[in-house]
Amino acid sequence: MTDRARRPGGRSATVRRRVLDATLAQLVQHGYDSLSIDVVAERSGVHRTTVYRRWRDVGGLLADVLNEAADDAWLPPDTGTLEGDLVAVNREICTALTDEPVTVALIAASFRSGQAAEALRAFWTERYDRCAGLVRRAVERGEIPAGTDAYRLLIAATAPLYHELVLLRSAADARLPEIAARGAATAARAGAFTTR
Amino acid sequence: MTDRARRPGGRSATVRRRVLDATLAQLVQHGYDSLSIDVVAERSGVHRTTVYRRWRDVGGLLADVLNEAADDAWLPPDTGTLEGDLVAVNREICTALTDEPVTVALIAASFRSGQAAEALRAFWTERYDRCAGLVRRAVERGEIPAGTDAYRLLIAATAPLYHELVLLRSAADARLPEIAARGAATAARAGAFTTR
Repeated sequence: MTDRARRPGGRSATVRRRVLDATLAQLVQHGYDSLSIDVVAERSGVHRTTVYRRWRDVGGLLADVLNEAADDAWLPPDTGTLEGDLVAVNREICTALTDEPVTVALIAASFRSGQAAEALRAFWTERYDRCAGLVRRAVERGEIPAGTDAYRLLIAATAPLYHELVLLRSAADARLPEIAARGAATAARAGAFTTR
Repeated sequence: MTDRARRPGGRSATVRRRVLDATLAQLVQHGYDSLSIDVVAERSGVHRTTVYRRWRDVGGLLADVLNEAADDAWLPPDTGTLEGDLVAVNREICTALTDEPVTVALIAASFRSGQAAEALRAFWTERYDRCAGLVRRAVERGEIPAGTDAYRLLIAATAPLYHELVLLRSAADARLPEIAARGAATAARAGAFTTR
Protein backbone atom coordinates (compact mmCIF):
# COMPACT_ATOMS: atom_id res chain seq x y z
CA MET A 1 0.00 0.00 0.00
CA THR A 2 1.42 3.39 -0.91
CA ASP A 3 1.83 6.18 1.60
CA ARG A 4 -0.74 8.17 -0.27
CA ALA A 5 -3.31 5.40 0.08
CA ARG A 6 -2.45 4.97 3.74
CA ARG A 7 -2.65 8.62 4.63
CA PRO A 8 -5.05 10.07 2.19
CA GLY A 9 -6.05 13.69 2.44
CA GLY A 10 -9.05 15.61 1.23
CA ARG A 11 -11.91 13.72 -0.32
CA SER A 12 -10.26 10.35 0.21
CA ALA A 13 -9.88 11.10 3.92
CA THR A 14 -13.52 12.17 4.16
CA VAL A 15 -14.66 8.97 2.48
CA ARG A 16 -12.53 6.89 4.84
CA ARG A 17 -13.82 8.78 7.88
CA ARG A 18 -17.44 8.21 6.85
CA VAL A 19 -16.93 4.54 6.05
CA LEU A 20 -15.02 3.75 9.26
CA ASP A 21 -17.52 5.69 11.38
CA ALA A 22 -20.36 3.76 9.75
CA THR A 23 -18.52 0.46 10.36
CA LEU A 24 -18.00 1.24 14.03
CA ALA A 25 -21.54 2.48 14.60
CA GLN A 26 -23.00 -0.57 12.88
CA LEU A 27 -20.75 -2.95 14.84
CA VAL A 28 -21.57 -1.41 18.21
CA GLN A 29 -25.31 -1.06 17.57
CA HIS A 30 -26.07 -4.27 15.70
CA GLY A 31 -23.07 -6.55 16.09
CA TYR A 32 -20.69 -8.33 13.77
CA ASP A 33 -23.38 -10.36 12.02
CA SER A 34 -25.03 -7.20 10.74
CA LEU A 35 -21.85 -5.94 9.06
CA SER A 36 -21.49 -6.10 5.30
CA ILE A 37 -20.09 -3.93 2.53
CA ASP A 38 -23.67 -3.12 1.47
CA VAL A 39 -24.82 -2.06 4.94
CA VAL A 40 -21.71 0.08 5.49
CA ALA A 41 -22.08 1.69 2.06
CA GLU A 42 -25.73 2.46 2.74
CA ARG A 43 -25.03 3.81 6.23
CA SER A 44 -22.04 5.93 5.17
CA GLY A 45 -23.60 7.23 1.97
CA VAL A 46 -20.47 6.14 0.10
CA HIS A 47 -20.97 4.23 -3.14
CA ARG A 48 -20.91 0.47 -2.75
CA THR A 49 -18.28 0.08 -5.48
CA THR A 50 -15.94 2.48 -3.69
CA VAL A 51 -16.31 0.66 -0.39
CA TYR A 52 -15.81 -2.69 -2.05
CA ARG A 53 -12.76 -1.58 -4.04
CA ARG A 54 -10.99 -0.06 -1.07
CA TRP A 55 -11.92 -2.40 1.81
CA ARG A 56 -12.94 -5.62 0.02
CA ASP A 57 -14.90 -7.19 2.90
CA VAL A 58 -15.82 -6.94 6.57
CA GLY A 59 -12.34 -8.07 7.59
CA GLY A 60 -10.82 -5.23 5.56
CA LEU A 61 -13.14 -2.71 7.18
CA LEU A 62 -12.33 -3.87 10.72
CA ALA A 63 -8.61 -4.03 10.01
CA ASP A 64 -8.72 -0.43 8.80
CA VAL A 65 -10.67 0.65 11.88
CA LEU A 66 -7.80 -0.73 13.97
CA ASN A 67 -5.11 0.69 11.68
CA GLU A 68 -6.68 4.08 12.07
CA ALA A 69 -6.97 3.74 15.86
CA ALA A 70 -3.25 2.94 15.94
CA ASP A 71 -2.46 6.08 14.00
CA ASP A 72 -2.35 8.47 16.94
CA ALA A 73 0.29 10.07 19.13
CA TRP A 74 -0.57 8.15 22.29
CA LEU A 75 2.25 7.59 24.72
CA PRO A 76 2.03 6.21 28.25
CA PRO A 77 1.96 8.88 30.97
CA ASP A 78 5.11 9.63 32.95
CA THR A 79 4.11 9.71 36.61
CA GLY A 80 7.59 9.33 38.06
CA THR A 81 7.28 5.74 39.28
CA LEU A 82 6.87 2.39 37.56
CA GLU A 83 3.81 1.50 39.58
CA GLY A 84 2.24 4.90 38.92
CA ASP A 85 2.85 4.57 35.19
CA LEU A 86 1.33 1.07 35.13
CA VAL A 87 -1.71 2.21 37.13
CA ALA A 88 -2.25 5.05 34.65
CA VAL A 89 -2.03 2.72 31.65
CA ASN A 90 -4.33 0.21 33.36
CA ARG A 91 -6.90 2.91 34.10
CA GLU A 92 -7.01 3.74 30.40
CA ILE A 93 -7.44 0.08 29.49
CA CYS A 94 -10.17 -0.32 32.10
CA THR A 95 -12.06 2.68 30.75
CA ALA A 96 -11.79 1.32 27.21
CA LEU A 97 -13.03 -2.12 28.27
CA THR A 98 -15.91 -0.92 30.43
CA ASP A 99 -17.07 2.39 28.92
CA GLU A 100 -16.30 2.02 25.21
CA PRO A 101 -18.45 -0.74 23.69
CA VAL A 102 -16.38 -0.63 20.51
CA THR A 103 -13.33 -2.08 22.27
CA VAL A 104 -15.05 -5.30 23.31
CA ALA A 105 -16.94 -5.41 20.00
CA LEU A 106 -13.61 -5.38 18.13
CA ILE A 107 -12.22 -8.11 20.39
CA ALA A 108 -15.35 -10.18 19.74
CA ALA A 109 -14.97 -9.54 15.99
CA SER A 110 -11.41 -10.85 16.15
CA PHE A 111 -12.89 -14.32 16.74
CA ARG A 112 -14.83 -14.03 13.47
CA SER A 113 -12.33 -12.48 11.10
CA GLY A 114 -8.70 -13.48 10.74
CA GLN A 115 -7.96 -10.06 9.30
CA ALA A 116 -9.46 -8.33 12.34
CA ALA A 117 -7.51 -10.68 14.63
CA GLU A 118 -4.26 -9.83 12.87
CA ALA A 119 -4.99 -6.09 13.00
CA LEU A 120 -5.86 -6.27 16.69
CA ARG A 121 -2.66 -8.15 17.41
CA ALA A 122 -0.66 -5.51 15.49
CA PHE A 123 -2.47 -2.73 17.37
CA TRP A 124 -1.70 -4.23 20.78
CA THR A 125 1.90 -5.10 19.88
CA GLU A 126 2.51 -1.53 18.85
CA ARG A 127 0.91 -0.22 22.06
CA TYR A 128 3.18 -2.47 24.12
CA ASP A 129 6.15 -1.18 22.10
CA ARG A 130 5.22 2.38 22.99
CA CYS A 131 5.02 1.40 26.67
CA ALA A 132 8.56 0.06 26.61
CA GLY A 133 9.67 3.61 27.45
CA LEU A 134 8.10 3.47 30.90
CA VAL A 135 10.06 0.28 31.63
CA ARG A 136 13.27 1.92 30.42
CA ARG A 137 12.66 4.90 32.70
CA ALA A 138 12.14 2.57 35.66
CA VAL A 139 15.45 0.86 34.90
CA GLU A 140 17.18 4.26 34.62
CA ARG A 141 15.74 5.33 37.98
CA GLY A 142 17.09 2.10 39.48
CA GLU A 143 13.59 0.90 40.42
CA ILE A 144 13.94 -2.39 38.56
CA PRO A 145 16.96 -4.39 37.39
CA ALA A 146 18.60 -3.79 34.04
CA GLY A 147 17.67 -6.64 31.73
CA THR A 148 14.00 -6.51 32.70
CA ASP A 149 11.94 -7.80 29.77
CA ALA A 150 9.58 -4.89 29.04
CA TYR A 151 7.05 -7.01 27.17
CA ARG A 152 6.79 -9.63 29.93
CA LEU A 153 6.34 -6.95 32.56
CA LEU A 154 3.70 -5.12 30.52
CA ILE A 155 1.77 -8.33 29.83
CA ALA A 156 1.81 -9.16 33.54
CA ALA A 157 0.53 -5.68 34.37
CA THR A 158 -2.28 -5.56 31.84
CA ALA A 159 -3.40 -9.16 31.24
CA PRO A 160 -5.50 -9.40 34.43
CA LEU A 161 -7.70 -6.56 33.13
CA TYR A 162 -8.45 -8.30 29.85
CA HIS A 163 -8.94 -11.62 31.59
CA GLU A 164 -11.35 -10.24 34.18
CA LEU A 165 -13.29 -7.77 32.06
CA VAL A 166 -13.37 -9.51 28.67
CA LEU A 167 -13.12 -13.26 29.26
CA LEU A 168 -14.43 -13.71 32.81
CA ARG A 169 -16.84 -10.78 32.34
CA SER A 170 -16.44 -9.82 36.00
CA ALA A 171 -18.13 -6.74 37.33
CA ALA A 172 -15.74 -3.81 37.03
CA ASP A 173 -13.76 -3.41 40.24
CA ALA A 174 -12.34 0.09 40.67
CA ARG A 175 -9.23 -1.35 42.36
CA LEU A 176 -8.37 -3.63 39.45
CA PRO A 177 -5.90 -1.23 37.72
CA GLU A 178 -4.02 -0.74 41.02
CA ILE A 179 -3.98 -4.42 42.00
CA ALA A 180 -2.67 -5.57 38.62
CA ALA A 181 -0.09 -2.76 38.48
CA ARG A 182 1.09 -3.45 42.01
CA GLY A 183 1.52 -7.17 41.31
CA ALA A 184 3.57 -6.59 38.18
CA ALA A 185 5.67 -3.75 39.63
CA THR A 186 6.42 -5.78 42.78
CA ALA A 187 7.50 -8.78 40.72
CA ALA A 188 9.61 -6.56 38.44
CA ARG A 189 11.40 -4.94 41.39
CA ALA A 190 12.26 -8.42 42.67
CA GLY A 191 13.71 -9.32 39.27
CA ALA A 192 10.98 -11.73 38.13
CA PHE A 193 11.06 -10.42 34.56
CA THR A 194 14.79 -10.24 33.93
CA THR A 195 15.87 -12.29 30.97
CA ARG A 196 18.10 -15.10 32.02
CA MET B 1 -33.70 -28.63 37.60
CA THR B 2 -33.98 -31.79 39.68
CA ASP B 3 -30.99 -33.85 40.73
CA ARG B 4 -32.23 -36.63 38.52
CA ALA B 5 -32.22 -34.37 35.47
CA ARG B 6 -28.80 -32.96 36.36
CA ARG B 7 -27.12 -36.31 36.88
CA PRO B 8 -29.07 -38.69 34.81
CA GLY B 9 -28.09 -42.33 34.53
CA GLY B 10 -28.71 -44.99 31.93
CA ARG B 11 -30.48 -44.00 28.75
CA SER B 12 -30.65 -40.35 29.72
CA ALA B 13 -26.86 -40.26 30.27
CA THR B 14 -26.26 -41.91 26.91
CA VAL B 15 -28.45 -39.37 25.16
CA ARG B 16 -26.63 -36.52 26.88
CA ARG B 17 -23.23 -37.97 26.00
CA ARG B 18 -24.18 -38.31 22.33
CA VAL B 19 -25.68 -34.83 22.12
CA LEU B 20 -22.77 -33.10 23.87
CA ASP B 21 -20.20 -35.02 21.81
CA ALA B 22 -22.02 -34.01 18.64
CA THR B 23 -22.15 -30.37 19.80
CA LEU B 24 -18.41 -30.32 20.50
CA ALA B 25 -17.45 -32.06 17.27
CA GLN B 26 -19.65 -29.73 15.23
CA LEU B 27 -18.28 -26.64 17.01
CA VAL B 28 -14.66 -27.63 16.52
CA GLN B 29 -15.05 -28.77 12.91
CA HIS B 30 -17.45 -26.18 11.53
CA GLY B 31 -17.62 -23.35 14.05
CA TYR B 32 -20.35 -21.64 16.02
CA ASP B 33 -22.32 -20.53 12.98
CA SER B 34 -22.90 -24.14 11.95
CA LEU B 35 -24.46 -25.09 15.29
CA SER B 36 -28.20 -25.60 15.57
CA ILE B 37 -30.57 -27.94 17.35
CA ASP B 38 -31.30 -29.60 13.99
CA VAL B 39 -27.65 -30.17 13.11
CA VAL B 40 -26.84 -31.54 16.55
CA ALA B 41 -29.90 -33.83 16.48
CA GLU B 42 -28.89 -35.11 13.06
CA ARG B 43 -25.27 -35.63 14.03
CA SER B 44 -26.04 -37.32 17.35
CA GLY B 45 -28.87 -39.48 16.04
CA VAL B 46 -31.05 -38.21 18.89
CA HIS B 47 -34.57 -37.08 18.01
CA ARG B 48 -34.89 -33.36 17.36
CA THR B 49 -37.77 -33.02 19.83
CA THR B 50 -35.67 -34.56 22.60
CA VAL B 51 -32.75 -32.22 21.92
CA TYR B 52 -35.04 -29.20 21.74
CA ARG B 53 -36.94 -30.12 24.93
CA ARG B 54 -33.81 -30.66 26.99
CA TRP B 55 -31.38 -28.03 25.66
CA ARG B 56 -33.68 -25.49 24.02
CA ASP B 57 -31.07 -23.77 21.83
CA VAL B 58 -27.38 -23.49 21.00
CA GLY B 59 -26.77 -21.54 24.21
CA GLY B 60 -28.29 -24.38 26.21
CA LEU B 61 -26.10 -26.93 24.44
CA LEU B 62 -22.89 -24.97 25.06
CA ALA B 63 -23.79 -24.26 28.66
CA ASP B 64 -24.30 -27.98 29.24
CA VAL B 65 -20.97 -28.79 27.57
CA LEU B 66 -19.31 -26.52 30.13
CA ASN B 67 -21.42 -27.83 33.02
CA GLU B 68 -20.32 -31.31 32.15
CA ALA B 69 -16.66 -30.28 31.83
CA ALA B 70 -16.91 -28.80 35.34
CA ASP B 71 -18.24 -32.07 36.71
CA ASP B 72 -14.91 -33.76 37.32
CA ALA B 73 -12.58 -34.36 40.24
CA TRP B 74 -9.79 -32.05 39.05
CA LEU B 75 -7.64 -30.51 41.74
CA PRO B 76 -4.42 -28.54 41.27
CA PRO B 77 -1.25 -30.59 41.75
CA ASP B 78 0.70 -30.34 45.00
CA THR B 79 4.34 -29.88 44.06
CA GLY B 80 5.53 -28.56 47.40
CA THR B 81 6.06 -24.92 46.41
CA LEU B 82 3.76 -22.11 45.35
CA GLU B 83 5.70 -21.45 42.17
CA GLY B 84 5.80 -25.16 41.29
CA ASP B 85 2.04 -25.44 41.79
CA LEU B 86 1.38 -22.39 39.61
CA VAL B 87 3.69 -23.66 36.87
CA ALA B 88 1.82 -26.99 36.88
CA VAL B 89 -1.57 -25.28 36.61
CA ASN B 90 -0.27 -22.98 33.88
CA ARG B 91 1.09 -25.91 31.89
CA GLU B 92 -2.37 -27.46 31.92
CA ILE B 93 -3.95 -24.19 30.78
CA CYS B 94 -1.34 -23.82 28.04
CA THR B 95 -2.01 -27.33 26.77
CA ALA B 96 -5.75 -26.67 26.74
CA LEU B 97 -5.30 -23.39 24.85
CA THR B 98 -2.84 -24.66 22.30
CA ASP B 99 -3.64 -28.36 21.79
CA GLU B 100 -7.38 -28.59 22.44
CA PRO B 101 -9.28 -26.63 19.79
CA VAL B 102 -12.48 -26.95 21.80
CA THR B 103 -11.18 -24.62 24.52
CA VAL B 104 -10.68 -21.65 22.23
CA ALA B 105 -13.87 -22.56 20.33
CA LEU B 106 -15.84 -22.31 23.58
CA ILE B 107 -14.20 -18.98 24.43
CA ALA B 108 -15.09 -17.72 20.94
CA ALA B 109 -18.66 -18.99 21.41
CA SER B 110 -18.92 -17.01 24.65
CA PHE B 111 -18.92 -13.85 22.52
CA ARG B 112 -21.99 -15.14 20.66
CA SER B 113 -24.14 -16.62 23.38
CA GLY B 114 -24.86 -15.03 26.75
CA GLN B 115 -25.65 -18.47 28.13
CA ALA B 116 -22.26 -19.84 27.02
CA ALA B 117 -20.55 -16.75 28.50
CA GLU B 118 -22.27 -17.29 31.84
CA ALA B 119 -21.41 -21.01 31.84
CA LEU B 120 -17.77 -20.28 30.98
CA ARG B 121 -17.57 -17.73 33.76
CA ALA B 122 -19.05 -20.26 36.22
CA PHE B 123 -16.60 -22.90 35.00
CA TRP B 124 -13.57 -20.66 35.51
CA THR B 125 -14.78 -19.32 38.85
CA GLU B 126 -15.16 -22.83 40.15
CA ARG B 127 -11.68 -23.78 38.85
CA TYR B 128 -10.18 -20.77 40.66
CA ASP B 129 -12.05 -21.83 43.80
CA ARG B 130 -10.46 -25.28 43.59
CA CYS B 131 -7.02 -23.65 43.24
CA ALA B 132 -7.49 -21.69 46.46
CA GLY B 133 -6.05 -24.74 48.23
CA LEU B 134 -2.63 -24.22 46.70
CA VAL B 135 -2.59 -20.65 48.00
CA ARG B 136 -3.64 -21.85 51.47
CA ARG B 137 -0.81 -24.39 51.46
CA ALA B 138 1.69 -21.67 50.52
CA VAL B 139 0.46 -19.54 53.44
CA GLU B 140 0.74 -22.53 55.80
CA ARG B 141 4.32 -23.18 54.62
CA GLY B 142 5.12 -19.53 55.31
CA GLU B 143 5.96 -18.86 51.66
CA ILE B 144 3.52 -15.98 51.35
CA PRO B 145 1.87 -13.71 53.92
CA ALA B 146 -1.39 -14.64 55.61
CA GLY B 147 -4.16 -12.53 54.14
CA THR B 148 -3.01 -13.15 50.55
CA ASP B 149 -6.04 -12.87 48.27
CA ALA B 150 -6.09 -16.26 46.50
CA TYR B 151 -8.23 -15.07 43.62
CA ARG B 152 -6.01 -12.06 42.86
CA LEU B 153 -2.88 -14.19 42.96
CA LEU B 154 -4.41 -16.87 40.70
CA ILE B 155 -5.62 -14.28 38.18
CA ALA B 156 -2.13 -12.74 38.07
CA ALA B 157 -0.60 -16.18 37.50
CA THR B 158 -2.95 -17.33 34.76
CA ALA B 159 -4.17 -14.19 32.95
CA PRO B 160 -0.98 -13.74 30.87
CA LEU B 161 -1.62 -17.14 29.25
CA TYR B 162 -5.14 -16.25 28.16
CA HIS B 163 -4.03 -12.80 27.04
CA GLU B 164 -1.14 -14.09 24.97
CA LEU B 165 -2.65 -17.25 23.53
CA VAL B 166 -6.30 -16.24 23.09
CA LEU B 167 -6.45 -12.47 22.60
CA LEU B 168 -2.99 -11.60 21.26
CA ARG B 169 -2.78 -14.96 19.46
CA SER B 170 0.96 -15.10 20.06
CA ALA B 171 2.92 -18.14 19.03
CA ALA B 172 3.07 -20.55 21.95
CA ASP B 173 6.22 -19.94 24.00
CA ALA B 174 7.24 -22.95 26.07
CA ARG B 175 8.48 -20.65 28.85
CA LEU B 176 5.15 -18.85 29.22
CA PRO B 177 3.83 -21.04 32.09
CA GLU B 178 7.05 -20.51 34.05
CA ILE B 179 7.31 -16.77 33.39
CA ALA B 180 3.72 -16.06 34.42
CA ALA B 181 3.99 -18.31 37.49
CA ARG B 182 7.27 -16.73 38.55
CA GLY B 183 5.87 -13.21 38.24
CA ALA B 184 2.81 -13.98 40.33
CA ALA B 185 4.68 -16.02 42.96
CA THR B 186 7.35 -13.33 43.33
CA ALA B 187 4.71 -10.63 43.79
CA ALA B 188 2.80 -12.80 46.28
CA ARG B 189 5.91 -13.46 48.37
CA ALA B 190 6.49 -9.70 48.56
CA GLY B 191 2.92 -9.22 49.78
CA ALA B 192 1.46 -7.64 46.62
CA PHE B 193 -1.81 -9.58 46.94
CA THR B 194 -2.55 -9.17 50.62
CA THR B 195 -5.91 -7.59 51.26
CA ARG B 196 -5.48 -4.25 52.90
